[in-house]
Amino acid sequence: MIMLTGCGGHKTETEMKKMCEKLPMGADAIVRISKIEVYPEYLAEYRVFAAEVGERSLLTEPGVLSMYAMADKKDSTRISILEIYADQESYRRHIASEHFQKYKQGTLHMVKSLELADQNPMNPKMRVLNGIEE
Amino acid sequence: MIMLTGCGGHKTETEMKKMCEKLPMGADAIVRISKIEVYPEYLAEYRVFAAEVGERSLLTEPGVLSMYAMADKKDSTRISILEIYADQESYRRHIASEHFQKYKQGTLHMVKSLELADQNPMNPKMRVLNGIEE
Repeated sequence: MIMLTGCGGHKTETEMKKMCEKLPMGADAIVRISKIEVYPEYLAEYRVFAAEVGERSLLTEPGVLSMYAMADKKDSTRISILEIYADQESYRRHIASEHFQKYKQGTLHMVKSLELADQNPMNPKMRVLNGIEE
Repeated sequence: MIMLTGCGGHKTETEMKKMCEKLPMGADAIVRISKIEVYPEYLAEYRVFAAEVGERSLLTEPGVLSMYAMADKKDSTRISILEIYADQESYRRHIASEHFQKYKQGTLHMVKSLELADQNPMNPKMRVLNGIEE
């Protein structure tokens, strides 16, 4: 079950994987859309790496609040990831983690271009969380 | 309080606004990054409209699972909104709602360009939740 308590029972019928406790958004939080272009011949392999690093990060890192990866319907080699880190320290820890390094080193040759587009949330009261279905 | 139950107590110390019950992601769910360029002279006014439609949609529409608006740090007139609708019917209802029509008609002259970039989630097991702090 996934829900926002105190929010009238936002829930689905599905069970979610157990996630570590999360930090609140800090004053130095990072909200980012990473825009990645993958060489088509590596796309299937890239997806496996991306899914693994996303799940590991969300399940084990208190400061990783979102890591939601999407492929453009018109061109599936163009990927956007909504990444939210609670603070700068959480981002440093993420970058240094074994699972991130495995992803980064394992996919370097698959990535044609990478843009880290940092964002300011337009409504500072809005929060995003990611859950993963069992 | 915001938390993912069954997920080890993902929470912050802040109280969240009460939200309506939400639908699960359907087979015909819509995951979209709307990319909006706003004329600079209207940016402040646009933000008010965007915050209102985002809050109203999340708080009252069972099929609006995400409406997270961000402004590019390098150019705050370039806005991205992560929109997730549980299914096509939810999207039709959203478009027909009073709050969406108020936003749409009220901001038409503020918007320089609009691109609706539909996405395929890369990890179909991942869920996004939005909450709004009190």
